[in-house]
Amino acid sequence: MAGRLNPSAAGGITAQLAGFAARAQWADLPEVLRHEAKRAFVNFFGTALAGCRDPALQAADRVFSHFRSGTACTVIGRPQGTDALHAASLNAMSGNVFDFDDTHLPTIIHPTAPVAPALLALAQTRPMTGQDLLLAFAIGVEIECRLGNAVSPRHYQRGWHITSTCGVFGAAAACARAMGLDATRTAWALGSAAAQSSGLVETLGSMAKSIGVGNAASNGLLSAMLAAEGFQGPRRPLEGPRGFLQVMGDEPDLEAITSGLGERWELMNNTYKPYPCGVVLNPVIEACLGLHPDLARQLPQVVRVELKGHSLLRERTDRPSPGSGREAQVSAQHAVAVTLTLGRAGLDEFSDTCAADPKWRELGGKVAFADDDSFGVESATVTVHLRDGGRSTRHVEAARGSLAVPLTDRELETKLAALAAWGGSGCQAAPLAAALWSLDARADAGSLMLLATPRVEQA
Amino acid sequence: MAGRLNPSAAGGITAQLAGFAARAQWADLPEVLRHEAKRAFVNFFGTALAGCRDPALQAADRVFSHFRSGTACTVIGRPQGTDALHAASLNAMSGNVFDFDDTHLPTIIHPTAPVAPALLALAQTRPMTGQDLLLAFAIGVEIECRLGNAVSPRHYQRGWHITSTCGVFGAAAACARAMGLDATRTAWALGSAAAQSSGLVETLGSMAKSIGVGNAASNGLLSAMLAAEGFQGPRRPLEGPRGFLQVMGDEPDLEAITSGLGERWELMNNTYKPYPCGVVLNPVIEACLGLHPDLARQLPQVVRVELKGHSLLRERTDRPSPGSGREAQVSAQHAVAVTLTLGRAGLDEFSDTCAADPKWRELGGKVAFADDDSFGVESATVTVHLRDGGRSTRHVEAARGSLAVPLTDRELETKLAALAAWGGSGCQAAPLAAALWSLDARADAGSLMLLATPRVEQA
Repeated sequence: MAGRLNPSAAGGITAQLAGFAARAQWADLPEVLRHEAKRAFVNFFGTALAGCRDPALQAADRVFSHFRSGTACTVIGRPQGTDALHAASLNAMSGNVFDFDDTHLPTIIHPTAPVAPALLALAQTRPMTGQDLLLAFAIGVEIECRLGNAVSPRHYQRGWHITSTCGVFGAAAACARAMGLDATRTAWALGSAAAQSSGLVETLGSMAKSIGVGNAASNGLLSAMLAAEGFQGPRRPLEGPRGFLQVMGDEPDLEAITSGLGERWELMNNTYKPYPCGVVLNPVIEACLGLHPDLARQLPQVVRVELKGHSLLRERTDRPSPGSGREAQVSAQHAVAVTLTLGRAGLDEFSDTCAADPKWRELGGKVAFADDDSFGVESATVTVHLRDGGRSTRHVEAARGSLAVPLTDRELETKLAALAAWGGSGCQAAPLAAALWSLDARADAGSLMLLATPRVEQA
Repeated sequence: MAGRLNPSAAGGITAQLAGFAARAQWADLPEVLRHEAKRAFVNFFGTALAGCRDPALQAADRVFSHFRSGTACTVIGRPQGTDALHAASLNAMSGNVFDFDDTHLPTIIHPTAPVAPALLALAQTRPMTGQDLLLAFAIGVEIECRLGNAVSPRHYQRGWHITSTCGVFGAAAACARAMGLDATRTAWALGSAAAQSSGLVETLGSMAKSIGVGNAASNGLLSAMLAAEGFQGPRRPLEGPRGFLQVMGDEPDLEAITSGLGERWELMNNTYKPYPCGVVLNPVIEACLGLHPDLARQLPQVVRVELKGHSLLRERTDRPSPGSGREAQVSAQHAVAVTLTLGRAGLDEFSDTCAADPKWRELGGKVAFADDDSFGVESATVTVHLRDGGRSTRHVEAARGSLAVPLTDRELETKLAALAAWGGSGCQAAPLAAALWSLDARADAGSLMLLATPRVEQA
């Protein structure tokens, strides 16, 4: 494998990544990586089945329906199919709309939403085995996240929605590979992806976020299709002086892109959320869930809830009056109030309706942050102070869903089942999960998409 | 008018631009502006008819043809129609593929290519008068170029292809206006445009540039359609801390966006190229065309061709060995060699074939730059030194096609005719030009598109 993937042998960064995408083989993927890819799909289908009827999806679908050129590709959770580009876009939006999808920890990229839907749409329009699909997915995520590593953390800090900006490269590379493009054409696909890389953090919390994420998937697929038809790109769309890395990265770490390519896999840094919230809230919510049974009846006596954690916890989640479900997902005040009160932290607790309820403001208003950068972001200590001087404390060293305590396969299946039921599409989670766990044995990868529609009987 | 457009009355930049787009009226447009809008269309159709069979367009069309959802909208120069989004994209690519389209001098935006095709496609799917279309066009160009002014010159210098990055806002605003969206929904359209703003200078000279320009048109149109269906955007997609201006502009000049909005019009800073080259080459080419008759037979005696001009001339065009027609368009060496030798500077002289001919290298190799920043970019002095000590000099104070010496209406018509013939689509230029000069009197703006296809008899 080293000979086939040796990055130092192959010129610039674009050429190296394109060569890697064109030449990596199923046999190169460690078993643990193959399994992690399946886990990413299980999680993805759960969040997509939950998100598929969100108002953002409904509005996008109303517009896209005027531009449907076919019905071969499944829109997750809907009976009516569409063409590959629109399916890729809508399914990426569904998977990401609640930010309940996976998180590549070094970058905060949600890696699966842009890549998997592009591949799944492609798999419904051309022959593709489950192994083909999983390999292309691993390659796409690898390129997406390595580019993310190179531009992090300043890229996101500046205001780039990194899931969209890097996702289009992942989708382009994955689709190029699945289409069997050579390294030259894969580089062209990366060139067209570079011309389409976009997405702003300012749009988070609004529907406009979703058009960026949807585009990442569909424009990545389009880039590969264009390259296959001879649509050329520049030689160095990534590393050139006016290319992605220089323009959209501030002092990018170029070495991070190719070092250990094909040896270390970024999918192994992927995590899955137990709660539909910003990941920094995970330990806080877990602590509050633990405190709930004893405290639920003493809540009127609470005078202060102290959150000790990394300063990022405060910086990202100090939001006392969230105006929407999406803001509630990154509001420590809301998370603490609902979780201590209800003992639950699911999509219903972070909906627009729940966020709009003024009753959470009082308890939320008692939240106080105590920065301690000796904590990792997966850790927090929650201390509830009562009027009578009593206190209850819960420390979470590593929250469920962190790399140290990843969700188990069973927990991922439970999440899929819960989200499929929540979304109300009528899709049955059990056969879908079974198909995903055996995806590498599936001859026709695209056929599994029928399991993600209400038309289960046809699968 | 002041009351209706007063920007200071209306909150943030996004809200002010959206209010302007929603409320400006045909009666607000000075006659000279209305006429300038028509001139932009005449120039646009010329460049689009020339570009419509470029290999980039052929490749894109092959891919897009799989995703055609209808045939109501004209693809310029082709008999087969397509749907509105694909027509917008392909026509924007055609108009810009040779960079022979118009240039907004303060920003180097090619303003018409992203905006006009989106509107023309829309005009073929819903009732729109010529006045509606011209007004929406003026509004779109205004917002596109004002955003460009705010981020120039650093945005382009950093590597943003400003025609694409700002074009999507122009197309979104224009389409929102033509669809009659209110200010709130127009702001949403600008939000979805912000999520889709992309395009890198690194892609120039490759086909990948064109997907960025095509997307600017189609994604702008899509943004307006999404907004009409309730697809919401953030409150401040432009001026927010993680919005377009802060993320993609380095120290943007916010005042430039709203100062004099509705009073000064950026379309009046638009220019049209006499030659298919970077505008800084205009005075050099004009000087060489003037020198050609006397020098054509003495070229073997030339020892040096000195180009005195603004340093931007050297910075943008010092390219001794252009590898393609597109590079030749920004190569002073190539431009000087072909123009002195042939006395012509049309698309044939800047084609891939012509650029590949090694015979230009010798004369081109004798070009020397002499920076003099007391020159404007529309000025240059070309001095040809001969072996016998003789010299010929030609100074051009303001090149044709500059704001000082704009192409006349007649010259624009001649350019349209020449480019229509060059493109070989069989489209007749004369009836198209006549329709464009009377566009403000046309009840059905979309019907003029039939004049831009080989099917003239149907118009």
